[in-house]
Amino acid sequence: MIRADKDLAFILQFENVAWYEKGCVKILDRRIYPAKIEFVTCYNHTEVAKAITDMVTQSGGPYAAAGMGMALAAYEARNKSQEEILEYLQSAAYALSHARPTTVKRMELVVGGCIEAAINALEQGLELDEAIFLHVLNSMNKRYIRTGEVANYLVDMFPNKGVIMTQCFGETIVGLMLKEAKRRKKDIKLICPETRPYFQGARLTASVAYEQGFDVTVITDNMPAYIMMSKKMDLFTSAADVICMDGHVVNKVGTLQISIAAKYFGIPYFVTGIPDRSHGKVSTVKIEERDESYVLEAMGIRTAMEGVKGYYPTFDITPPHLVSGVVTDKGIYSPYDLKRY
Amino acid sequence: MIRADKDLAFILQFENVAWYEKGCVKILDRRIYPAKIEFVTCYNHTEVAKAITDMVTQSGGPYAAAGMGMALAAYEARNKSQEEILEYLQSAAYALSHARPTTVKRMELVVGGCIEAAINALEQGLELDEAIFLHVLNSMNKRYIRTGEVANYLVDMFPNKGVIMTQCFGETIVGLMLKEAKRRKKDIKLICPETRPYFQGARLTASVAYEQGFDVTVITDNMPAYIMMSKKMDLFTSAADVICMDGHVVNKVGTLQISIAAKYFGIPYFVTGIPDRSHGKVSTVKIEERDESYVLEAMGIRTAMEGVKGYYPTFDITPPHLVSGVVTDKGIYSPYDLKRY
Repeated sequence: MIRADKDLAFILQFENVAWYEKGCVKILDRRIYPAKIEFVTCYNHTEVAKAITDMVTQSGGPYAAAGMGMALAAYEARNKSQEEILEYLQSAAYALSHARPTTVKRMELVVGGCIEAAINALEQGLELDEAIFLHVLNSMNKRYIRTGEVANYLVDMFPNKGVIMTQCFGETIVGLMLKEAKRRKKDIKLICPETRPYFQGARLTASVAYEQGFDVTVITDNMPAYIMMSKKMDLFTSAADVICMDGHVVNKVGTLQISIAAKYFGIPYFVTGIPDRSHGKVSTVKIEERDESYVLEAMGIRTAMEGVKGYYPTFDITPPHLVSGVVTDKGIYSPYDLKRY
Repeated sequence: MIRADKDLAFILQFENVAWYEKGCVKILDRRIYPAKIEFVTCYNHTEVAKAITDMVTQSGGPYAAAGMGMALAAYEARNKSQEEILEYLQSAAYALSHARPTTVKRMELVVGGCIEAAINALEQGLELDEAIFLHVLNSMNKRYIRTGEVANYLVDMFPNKGVIMTQCFGETIVGLMLKEAKRRKKDIKLICPETRPYFQGARLTASVAYEQGFDVTVITDNMPAYIMMSKKMDLFTSAADVICMDGHVVNKVGTLQISIAAKYFGIPYFVTGIPDRSHGKVSTVKIEERDESYVLEAMGIRTAMEGVKGYYPTFDITPPHLVSGVVTDKGIYSPYDLKRY
């Protein structure tokens, strides 16, 4: 199933995101990384779902965590009958996939795959938790290889000595895009808006780039347009939580604003990811709104006076006319032409 | 000189900004307000200049602090000869007006006025520090009345039940605009971007609005465009550090980005303030760049990994084609028509 020799290096890069061990799932707490490296340990799938809701992990992390949570659910149900086990897994799949509203459909594919793996394992008389765990690793591995292809096409768009603006933390694609740029000796510089309220740009993207030896500068979220006006800027890129088939991009709030500024200054915006057939139109996407308290504080310290309200839409929607290209594992598509993918 | 009965109420609103007392100037520390109400006490004009550089006070505060600093300089020089006193005041005027690079010219007008007041006082044999102090209060009072006129014209632009987006902290104009809206029973709602890195929007503008009983919502700086797309938004307004005669607006970084988004969504942007004859063209304005550490932390807590760089342009430049109107004490002008002011 898994070729440990060749693939382990890939997989290990995920290990610190979310990892199943007998009876528990450990999730790297990205809310405090890189200041502290701590793991949240979940002893049942409900705790895993809660950790996803609480944004212990973000970006691609919740998909890994949900898969690992399914392995844990199988472990929880280990003494039940076959029928009861499948029922239990179905209920765990619902809880895990609905932990955050915007990504339900993509999550359903992840947990659905785990249930299929469980059914196969039952037929073959294998340990269920082990089988699901290996299935998740295998899927991650496939996704990793696929993302490598995306990175290839994206780096084609980088001029040598290019200055690239990112948004939030694109996780695997950020790591692989930098790796590929390095391999091709493209001497790029990164500008990372900090990405409030969780500072994923400052904490995660900038760290990954710095650790790989790139020149990386953090700015606050009110600066992208002025940086585009006053400095050299070649390209804006982001990952996406959902790329709808109609070309609308749903991603961390701020993407729309930067893409409007990019259009205004004539800078191309490339989104990376796989078009999502489960969202034919953007109208099927529900934008998650989270607790207002997150925008009324920074790094855990209250900024506004008690009584002042806050509003926190987690994602925003960028229309296709602001997107220069959708960079997939099969090449770069016009946002208006995603059916051809 | 000052009509205490009628004007004191106006003046008292400034008292907690910067205030001269025999031998010292007390400045409200806006870096920590409203969480804590603390004053920085300066015992000579050099300490006042340093407090301005260190952004103890912002927006209109530095002008008040510089004037009060001139009164303090006169006190420092009280035992010198007339000639030495004027020399000392000239040197203090230079230090105070150059405490921040972007506002030197406007500052020079403030400290220049103080020197004139000192010369008059010398001729009349008055106490110099007292005379400068009263001159500063009188100027503030005049400015306050003038800003009241600006507020009048601005509120004309607010629809009843309008939703207004602000940027940073416009100080007097924010207070007076809200007072005027209340007087006219215009039931407006405010959306305040938090304004990194100092959070003036979250800490100051939102507080002033909340204390006056308005419905006020804080958002992070990556949200304005999405709020404009997804919610009702009638108008964007900001004050300015410099309004150049060629219609370019220099204001807290983020103004450009919001104004681009406002243009994109068809929302008018009104800047308030007096066109600055000392800046015929925007090319004469120097944009201040401050210590990168401010963008690498939030509320004093480090966000990015050590080694990652930061970049902090304090202001940005909004071109006239993004400005719907310049709201002055004499009415609303086209940004292309400021010579008529």
